[in-house]
Amino acid sequence: MAVFTASDASAESGAALGPAYDRVRGATRALAAPLSAEDQCVQPMEDASPTKWHLAHTTWFFETFVLPLADTSYRPHDDRFAFLFNSYYESVGPRQPRPQRGMITRPSLDEVHAYRDRVDDTMRAMLRRPLSPELRARVVLGLEHEMQHQELLLTDALETLASNPTLPTYRAREATKETAAPALHWIERAEGLVEMGHAGAGFCFDNERPRHRAFVERFSFASRLVTNGEWLAFMNDGGYATPSLWLSDGWAAVRSNGWRAPHHWIDRQGAWHRFGLRGLRPVDVTSPVAHVSFYEADAYARWAKARLPTEAEWEIVATHARPPLENVLETGALEPRPLESNGDAAAVHQLFGDVWEWTSSPYVAYPRYRPLDGALGEYNAKFMCNQWVLRGASCFTPGASVRATYRNFFPPAARWQATGVRLAKWNLRT
Amino acid sequence: MAVFTASDASAESGAALGPAYDRVRGATRALAAPLSAEDQCVQPMEDASPTKWHLAHTTWFFETFVLPLADTSYRPHDDRFAFLFNSYYESVGPRQPRPQRGMITRPSLDEVHAYRDRVDDTMRAMLRRPLSPELRARVVLGLEHEMQHQELLLTDALETLASNPTLPTYRAREATKETAAPALHWIERAEGLVEMGHAGAGFCFDNERPRHRAFVERFSFASRLVTNGEWLAFMNDGGYATPSLWLSDGWAAVRSNGWRAPHHWIDRQGAWHRFGLRGLRPVDVTSPVAHVSFYEADAYARWAKARLPTEAEWEIVATHARPPLENVLETGALEPRPLESNGDAAAVHQLFGDVWEWTSSPYVAYPRYRPLDGALGEYNAKFMCNQWVLRGASCFTPGASVRATYRNFFPPAARWQATGVRLAKWNLRT
Amino acid sequence: MAVFTASDASAESGAALGPAYDRVRGATRALAAPLSAEDQCVQPMEDASPTKWHLAHTTWFFETFVLPLADTSYRPHDDRFAFLFNSYYESVGPRQPRPQRGMITRPSLDEVHAYRDRVDDTMRAMLRRPLSPELRARVVLGLEHEMQHQELLLTDALETLASNPTLPTYRAREATKETAAPALHWIERAEGLVEMGHAGAGFCFDNERPRHRAFVERFSFASRLVTNGEWLAFMNDGGYATPSLWLSDGWAAVRSNGWRAPHHWIDRQGAWHRFGLRGLRPVDVTSPVAHVSFYEADAYARWAKARLPTEAEWEIVATHARPPLENVLETGALEPRPLESNGDAAAVHQLFGDVWEWTSSPYVAYPRYRPLDGALGEYNAKFMCNQWVLRGASCFTPGASVRATYRNFFPPAARWQATGVRLAKWNLRT
Amino acid sequence: MAVFTASDASAESGAALGPAYDRVRGATRALAAPLSAEDQCVQPMEDASPTKWHLAHTTWFFETFVLPLADTSYRPHDDRFAFLFNSYYESVGPRQPRPQRGMITRPSLDEVHAYRDRVDDTMRAMLRRPLSPELRARVVLGLEHEMQHQELLLTDALETLASNPTLPTYRAREATKETAAPALHWIERAEGLVEMGHAGAGFCFDNERPRHRAFVERFSFASRLVTNGEWLAFMNDGGYATPSLWLSDGWAAVRSNGWRAPHHWIDRQGAWHRFGLRGLRPVDVTSPVAHVSFYEADAYARWAKARLPTEAEWEIVATHARPPLENVLETGALEPRPLESNGDAAAVHQLFGDVWEWTSSPYVAYPRYRPLDGALGEYNAKFMCNQWVLRGASCFTPGASVRATYRNFFPPAARWQATGVRLAKWNLRT
Repeated sequence: MAVFTASDASAESGAALGPAYDRVRGATRALAAPLSAEDQCVQPMEDASPTKWHLAHTTWFFETFVLPLADTSYRPHDDRFAFLFNSYYESVGPRQPRPQRGMITRPSLDEVHAYRDRVDDTMRAMLRRPLSPELRARVVLGLEHEMQHQELLLTDALETLASNPTLPTYRAREATKETAAPALHWIERAEGLVEMGHAGAGFCFDNERPRHRAFVERFSFASRLVTNGEWLAFMNDGGYATPSLWLSDGWAAVRSNGWRAPHHWIDRQGAWHRFGLRGLRPVDVTSPVAHVSFYEADAYARWAKARLPTEAEWEIVATHARPPLENVLETGALEPRPLESNGDAAAVHQLFGDVWEWTSSPYVAYPRYRPLDGALGEYNAKFMCNQWVLRGASCFTPGASVRATYRNFFPPAARWQATGVRLAKWNLRT
Repeated sequence: MAVFTASDASAESGAALGPAYDRVRGATRALAAPLSAEDQCVQPMEDASPTKWHLAHTTWFFETFVLPLADTSYRPHDDRFAFLFNSYYESVGPRQPRPQRGMITRPSLDEVHAYRDRVDDTMRAMLRRPLSPELRARVVLGLEHEMQHQELLLTDALETLASNPTLPTYRAREATKETAAPALHWIERAEGLVEMGHAGAGFCFDNERPRHRAFVERFSFASRLVTNGEWLAFMNDGGYATPSLWLSDGWAAVRSNGWRAPHHWIDRQGAWHRFGLRGLRPVDVTSPVAHVSFYEADAYARWAKARLPTEAEWEIVATHARPPLENVLETGALEPRPLESNGDAAAVHQLFGDVWEWTSSPYVAYPRYRPLDGALGEYNAKFMCNQWVLRGASCFTPGASVRATYRNFFPPAARWQATGVRLAKWNLRT
Repeated sequence: MAVFTASDASAESGAALGPAYDRVRGATRALAAPLSAEDQCVQPMEDASPTKWHLAHTTWFFETFVLPLADTSYRPHDDRFAFLFNSYYESVGPRQPRPQRGMITRPSLDEVHAYRDRVDDTMRAMLRRPLSPELRARVVLGLEHEMQHQELLLTDALETLASNPTLPTYRAREATKETAAPALHWIERAEGLVEMGHAGAGFCFDNERPRHRAFVERFSFASRLVTNGEWLAFMNDGGYATPSLWLSDGWAAVRSNGWRAPHHWIDRQGAWHRFGLRGLRPVDVTSPVAHVSFYEADAYARWAKARLPTEAEWEIVATHARPPLENVLETGALEPRPLESNGDAAAVHQLFGDVWEWTSSPYVAYPRYRPLDGALGEYNAKFMCNQWVLRGASCFTPGASVRATYRNFFPPAARWQATGVRLAKWNLRT
Repeated sequence: MAVFTASDASAESGAALGPAYDRVRGATRALAAPLSAEDQCVQPMEDASPTKWHLAHTTWFFETFVLPLADTSYRPHDDRFAFLFNSYYESVGPRQPRPQRGMITRPSLDEVHAYRDRVDDTMRAMLRRPLSPELRARVVLGLEHEMQHQELLLTDALETLASNPTLPTYRAREATKETAAPALHWIERAEGLVEMGHAGAGFCFDNERPRHRAFVERFSFASRLVTNGEWLAFMNDGGYATPSLWLSDGWAAVRSNGWRAPHHWIDRQGAWHRFGLRGLRPVDVTSPVAHVSFYEADAYARWAKARLPTEAEWEIVATHARPPLENVLETGALEPRPLESNGDAAAVHQLFGDVWEWTSSPYVAYPRYRPLDGALGEYNAKFMCNQWVLRGASCFTPGASVRATYRNFFPPAARWQATGVRLAKWNLRT
């Protein structure tokens, strides 16, 4: 799978964006390829969108926010698509209700492909011309936006396949070797006034800015992620049946949803299995746990006599660790993978790849935060309540999107993303 | 479009069923043909099923209730299909929840076609052999069942197309000539003890039996259906805003659903249009109103100082009128059509075709009713509450299904079928 | 407890209504007396109304439908009460939403008593004057209406007390003697064209008219009601876990409500108890089962290889049997009581008293039915859908309300009334 | 109304708690006195509890967490009350579901008074004996807990009275003089590392601890609260109809709830009125707006080109301002009052009293936060998600509860508390 790197997107000349554009757009199409037109059309739940909708929406994004800026005489490919493929931009106009995205059987997948081709042609022609800074910034935003949707496309497709009693496989499984999870170590950091938020010239979303100061207390940070095996211990210890471990809203979610294991875990004759894009198989105890909600992550941490890290803690560890990309979309693993047991025990592992890590930080604006102007101001700002920040990246995240300051966010009961758990503590010595 | 006639289905010899089988099965496939694989996969609401599900379920019906009876060693085409395509037979086993029928992206449409082909081959081989009476009856039941699903396939597909903001057309409209609705006449009938219910050798469902006596008072019966133009008069007179016209539950339905016109009526710049399988066009005032609920039919009748007929009244009129099939599925009209104004004013018109007619009769068992034995007893009996009987046939009903004793039934708020209104009165003279 | 007899209400002279008025009004107040002001204020569920609301609504009925007819200058006691205490008369004006009746903490119970006193004074003065036939009819309707609310007052109060985890008692239990339920006999009736509906000069509701003909097939009718002991046998045989016994909607109700026993049955350490106005005690196996829904009654009948009687069957049996009142409100039993085992085995027992009997007849209008004129036309007519007829009377029914033609009606899932089961069969010999 | 001061509760000797105990307990009873037994019994919505329940629950708190610690042989007044009056302590046992608190008609109000008297007698006897530090701390916690419920008792009672269409008054209105709201000034504060959280010996809840450092940027802080008049300007400018002003969840709340004005605002013939414990009257444009949700506060701030303060900002302003109590419970105002226009314009006004002030801070734990041990750990900790911090105090808050470090918290859509708006800005000069 082609890799799009951040440096491409931030290159100086307009023409330099052409190859990046092609790679990102091609990668999206490639990710959809194993799915049939029927798979790509349906909507398994309100949160998840059909694959075809992702293909069209990301195209609509260029058509709406980029092409008219480059050419005021630009006419949309189809006047009806603004209604069908606007996601949530109130400023742009009315739109198909989110729960009804699965009813868009027309345009057909072929017509959406033609829509992509047509817009791609226009975009490529535009990219051969000089670009104003604003236009260039919007092209980059469109590519970053599309990379975000690549991840959603996969997690939403997983939800679709999991909704089918026959549990179809997205891609056949490869042989995997057995490993043993290395022991979890605690990395300590001193207290201090730190800087956090994005700095420098590379791309970032508005919510990563401005860089600002925060005071952080001394803390300890787990060297690796919580594993499926550890999660089974939590389950076997009555984790899902012990209200004192849970936030009040979390306990209500356990009760009303009947949670007793992570999402996509299936009990087959008493043995826990896990369904993923590569099918159903027995739970691998050494892989990081995935598809758990914030409520579950928080309850697990309480059970483990630890806590979740704040996003400031996470960011300063990640910034200084300069960690490698470990298991992102381009590896093709499509599932969280166990940490190699011969890793450096003293190092921080699994920060970027495998699973997103729930933090203890509600998703709110940084001090002096300013959204983008105009309709694009709706991109992030209006979601700054009732959600929690996740940091890192998952096995579904394009490598080019990964950076230490990235702020992912989801509601506390969300489980359909590849979300996992890293522990922290205030201080081991006291 | 091929026509299957009832006489085929009731023919004496086993082999005689072969052509009927081919015609019915072929007709179902032909009805689905204008729809894409995506159209055929999605589920627009809980009541409506995907086209592909209809194709597979009708096949499963033969596989479950016919083939094992003919050959005890018969093995299902795919063991997973019993779960996916059982509709509501508790006796047969667990099944895909009804609201989740739209999630069956796999098997693909092609695989469902292969399923049909495979079962058809086995069925045809079986039909070349002598059939026991029970087996023969089940084949006929399977064909009648499939014809019922042909109608549902179309009304459900209409619901799917109507759920798409672009309002795709199933089949292009043909030119239609303008007509004027003839005046409505009242046909009078004397009181008396009558017989109703199915008699004779032809096929009927268990709920049409046994034939029994009922006392019917003197009544008057409308010569034709209520038209869209008359319905507009009801609307313009505040019909949807006058609680005294409505049953209490009907008024609650008006309020909670925001009803202000029949289903599939759309207000475009102040002009009422109607969406159908042949697209959107201005409401034709001379055509029969369709897609109204029992609640609306009942309120309209009260407004018109009339009432709905009982099913006994309807049946004795229809039995004696020996009316022709007027506008059923095989005409290809796909929409209710206006009555020709040069019709015989003294006759009863539009009894069979155009729209189903709500009666004032709740759907309950006839005296001494006995459901079929075994799982097939679930076919009709368990639905005998909270529904109302409709009589006649609609423009989506296969002609071979039409008979005067047929009892269709739907809940009082249902509007997605082609359901309309015929009026009755107790006595014009008093 | 004072007994109001129908002959009082139908007396010829206006003055003769005075004593009846006093008895009915006094009886309502007496029924509320064991309940505290708090008990009388709250609303345990949407279907049930607070006691205080019943006290006020029945008074509002006289104030709205009687007093202004007698004296056009009559001014309501309090202008706000029309909003608070109108039940469902759309023609009369807006009103407190039904689910919010429990929020009427003001007027206080004392104020409602004063309201009753004031209206009673005015009514009594009016009753001393000559009455027009229409006025007289409305007074009688008001009294019959209030008797209906006496029954609801008790069943709703039972619901309130049952909603309190401490299960308070309305009235202390009296010692009851043990009995054995006599064997159930089948009474046979021949087929024929019968007359049903109210005839004669006495009071009846509009829905009991007009008297009309119906054809009834030969049938058998159970000599007594189904007992708690027989219901336990149904439960122990898996009645609540066997879908084939249930209507489809009934099975859905079992599942969604978690029904596994009649309403007000409580499992205490493995032993079934029953809560009633006289408190909690072990289920009495020889008493008639009560507080079962139509769905349960229908399933029980299917399990017992019988069926529920039609309302025509019930009425012709009851009319010819001229049965005595057995266990109505005035006996003060407040609970269904076992049939004396020394009863005449060949007779039909328990028709009037103990429990209302679900019939297999949906609640619809009789042929040529005409509702009352004006707002009072809303009394019965607008509820003629989605409900089932019950016949007889319960231990909460005032004796003066009891008659063979009375049509009670409730939705099929309703369980908070004292509703039970009598069986019928088509024919024992075939 | 008696005033309980914090210094009482924190006095050194055990006996010194006696008068404080009497004052707090007496104050609760006095607050309930204007309400009838019926008023005190019902529950107007799930969030709000009946007055009687507050009276009993606060008593249960002493009976559960204090008396058994003082005397291990203590037996509860009534074994059933643990179920009825436990609020949310999972560790203590099962309990009446919150939405069913209004069904507790028994025990009667008199019985609850007797319960209070009995526990008060036992408590007073205990308080005459020496107290262990733990016991003393729990008595103080019980009193602080009861003061919290005094505020809830009033806001919940307001909800009850507002649910009655007759809008009963809790206490008659006093004449109020007209004022003009003084101009809003911006108080500036420099950036810096600050300390926040409770320090010293006085009482605080566990969530106010530990005192810790936070970095705060330079900011400006409004000298007074937003007024009703300013809110009307927001409304008249289309504030409730402009999605770009709202968080996404806030806009959804506006749509689904039909919000178009603050809670308890009623449109009477085109003029906005406000209902409060002192009845309905035209909106006073110079009083602080109250009963707005976080969503509305946030949207208003965006409209006003400002923002809500963080809780750190709020606390450091309040700590240094040493502001007086302005309009708390003991003033008996029972409504937010306008700021005197002759107030010192340069000062910060209305910090403690009138309305709680929404901050921009989600309610989460302070660094190194530790809940209380045992069941009391459920007091605050398990609610630390999906809520927002409010600071200050309202006209319903007992003066003795008021302190600069107090962290009140409610979900973002809550409107039934006296919640208002103070603005902040990052920096006026840039």
